[in-house]
Amino acid sequence: MNYDLVIHNGTFVTVNERFDIIPDGLLCVKAGNIERLEGLAADQSPPPATETIDANGGLVLPGLVNSHTHLPMTLFRGLADDLPLDTWLNEHIFPAEAAFLQPENVHWGALLACAEMLLSGTTTCCDGYFFEDQVAAAVDASGMRAVLAQGVIDFPAPGVPDPKKNIAVPRAFVSNWRHASALITPSVFCHSAYMCSAETLKKAKALSMDAGVRFQIHAAETQNECRQIQHDHNTTPIAYLDGLGILDEATLLVHCVWLTAEDIEIIFKRRARISHNPESNAKLAAGIAPVPQLLKSGIVLGLGTDGCASNNNLDLFHEMDMAAKIHKTETHDPTTMDARTVVEMATIGSARAIGLDHQIGTLEVGKQADVIVIDHHNPHLTPMYHPASHIVYSATCSDVRDVVVAGRVLVRNRQILCLDVERIMSKVNEIAYQIKKSR
Amino acid sequence: MNYDLVIHNGTFVTVNERFDIIPDGLLCVKAGNIERLEGLAADQSPPPATETIDANGGLVLPGLVNSHTHLPMTLFRGLADDLPLDTWLNEHIFPAEAAFLQPENVHWGALLACAEMLLSGTTTCCDGYFFEDQVAAAVDASGMRAVLAQGVIDFPAPGVPDPKKNIAVPRAFVSNWRHASALITPSVFCHSAYMCSAETLKKAKALSMDAGVRFQIHAAETQNECRQIQHDHNTTPIAYLDGLGILDEATLLVHCVWLTAEDIEIIFKRRARISHNPESNAKLAAGIAPVPQLLKSGIVLGLGTDGCASNNNLDLFHEMDMAAKIHKTETHDPTTMDARTVVEMATIGSARAIGLDHQIGTLEVGKQADVIVIDHHNPHLTPMYHPASHIVYSATCSDVRDVVVAGRVLVRNRQILCLDVERIMSKVNEIAYQIKKSR
Repeated sequence: MNYDLVIHNGTFVTVNERFDIIPDGLLCVKAGNIERLEGLAADQSPPPATETIDANGGLVLPGLVNSHTHLPMTLFRGLADDLPLDTWLNEHIFPAEAAFLQPENVHWGALLACAEMLLSGTTTCCDGYFFEDQVAAAVDASGMRAVLAQGVIDFPAPGVPDPKKNIAVPRAFVSNWRHASALITPSVFCHSAYMCSAETLKKAKALSMDAGVRFQIHAAETQNECRQIQHDHNTTPIAYLDGLGILDEATLLVHCVWLTAEDIEIIFKRRARISHNPESNAKLAAGIAPVPQLLKSGIVLGLGTDGCASNNNLDLFHEMDMAAKIHKTETHDPTTMDARTVVEMATIGSARAIGLDHQIGTLEVGKQADVIVIDHHNPHLTPMYHPASHIVYSATCSDVRDVVVAGRVLVRNRQILCLDVERIMSKVNEIAYQIKKSR
Repeated sequence: MNYDLVIHNGTFVTVNERFDIIPDGLLCVKAGNIERLEGLAADQSPPPATETIDANGGLVLPGLVNSHTHLPMTLFRGLADDLPLDTWLNEHIFPAEAAFLQPENVHWGALLACAEMLLSGTTTCCDGYFFEDQVAAAVDASGMRAVLAQGVIDFPAPGVPDPKKNIAVPRAFVSNWRHASALITPSVFCHSAYMCSAETLKKAKALSMDAGVRFQIHAAETQNECRQIQHDHNTTPIAYLDGLGILDEATLLVHCVWLTAEDIEIIFKRRARISHNPESNAKLAAGIAPVPQLLKSGIVLGLGTDGCASNNNLDLFHEMDMAAKIHKTETHDPTTMDARTVVEMATIGSARAIGLDHQIGTLEVGKQADVIVIDHHNPHLTPMYHPASHIVYSATCSDVRDVVVAGRVLVRNRQILCLDVERIMSKVNEIAYQIKKSR
């Protein structure tokens, strides 16, 4: 049998149930799926294949899964930092979005995000933004896998000047993208309980249930949000959403920094999932989500970076390091969030959170071949005792050498094969020049 | 006039008093010193020089200064993580040190550390360890700048089996290295108030005062340490050291996580300096140092990574990001530790902390030419609105392209010119193989 792709000569970190590590592994791909995964004896050659990746002794792992992004916000990377949340939003981000979010700009910003994600080993993301059709076209062009959602708010939004159309637009988006690409799964994203009315939330949830797609929402991110919901609805954001019938296993709650014991009980009972974004929460001083407790409660958590205006990157390696360290500090316990737990959160955890764990998140026979190779022949990764430790505490995004999605090689030797990165950077720099000039 | 080195065609982040940024800068070096630093008009060419670096539109900044390292601990990078502090130290690190810290291993570990630091833009470090003569030889071979100290404890130590010699050995080290190299400044490092008796501390301080060198010590790192000093001496670690006459402006206090208001007052009054190591403190769950408060008090702080067994890297870019984010979380204030403050801490702040601010830490005429070039022609650094934001929140160690120490180019296009990196990695991998086998 001739395989489409064979990867060999590396240490394979499967992230399966037992977290098996295969020292001299062999992974064979046919029609986008992993057909074989096993050790290769020293005297054996890899089988014939149309394409072969020699990992050169590096680490081979499942592609990372970013469970929360706003891709086109790469346009605003570092535009404004270190400001009070309301100044940052109202005086910088909202005006920039209002002035510069035209469809074409959104497309270039999303393409840049795809380039950054692929080069840093992320093979799947879960996004929500405006002009999401443009985002989807960009992701489609990049060859990445994604869950993509049109955003919903009750105010005039980029591309949706009339809030009365804020359900019609995501409905059209879901319909446009439901069968358009095997790698793109549409979804619906309500911004939050404070930017959407109860009616909007219920309609959006009904739309996502009818279409059988995920419903995403920012929830319990800041203390201010909790105070506002308490004031308006006399309860917590989680209990409020639950009262509206929003929470079930197709719901992704983003952030969940401020939770009561009852909130955690509700999330567990409804089997809702959480996207944990520690760097964004830290940079905006939102707080620290009670992640060790959530994991102990058996709640599914994925890792996410959030948008580039509040991080300021889409780098899950950096995010893993932060996830490992910030909870140790918070709990005063160095055993909290060990390296294996964090690697799981950035792969199979995120895959579960976004509903794609049947396809991705681990290296296992039968799953899609979303695979990355990390080159650890580098002073900062020498020596290596434990692969998971290196992935979390020592590797950086630039150590990713090759990236495969659904069996297709998208990055080889740190070169993106499917996008014109020079042109994308040049276009985004032109847009940024206009943004700078306007300030 | 023919310069030895000219750097041009970049955005120069001077980190001077006004944090001046020179958009199209020119920096000229003669005999290791910065002789000119100014803007270069579009129609002007850079002056003739023996060597020229075209920064290609990148960022040019002072070399980063790591105010706390244990260089040879690269040998134990990722050997043991996510463990309670005493298990980690007593069952993993101390036994590995006892078995594997021979002079030759220390030398290779230190060489690896130098390679890692240079490739990540660090031009100066401040170190303390055992067999420090081997460390100094390695640093000397690398061309880096450093403050280096022989460690002092009251127990048998690698290279100092007889604790009675724990002052004689650092005395010999200081004497060996005082005039040996223009780039190496010797120092004395007492491990801590709980590993050294009052007598040892006073003798070591007397040695450092006699020799006119820095005195370094870990202080107030963990709550356990504070409890022990309280139990043994009925006071805090800082007040205890002050009572022994240890604290003055030549003293570098490492960590300072657990401080009382009186401790902060003492440190300020004595003009002692602090090395802040947020990633190590987070990973070991030691806690979060009250850095915003210390800065407000006018205390000099530098940034440091600590050793590779507790971080697990020597990457100051990563450390800057953590320093910016963790204090925002801790203070619930996103304006805390803005990007400029953090860049200052990793350059001139560290230079002040280790007593080399007259020579390094900023790009200014008259200072030594310790300079790095960052390539930001890369998706994760596109677009760029504010250089300081990019340095702290978006750049990674791998974005460093060129590195200059005292006017000598040590890294060009990410290639180390002065060390045989392949041989160093291969030697360290051999040592690590023995360490693995022994476990």
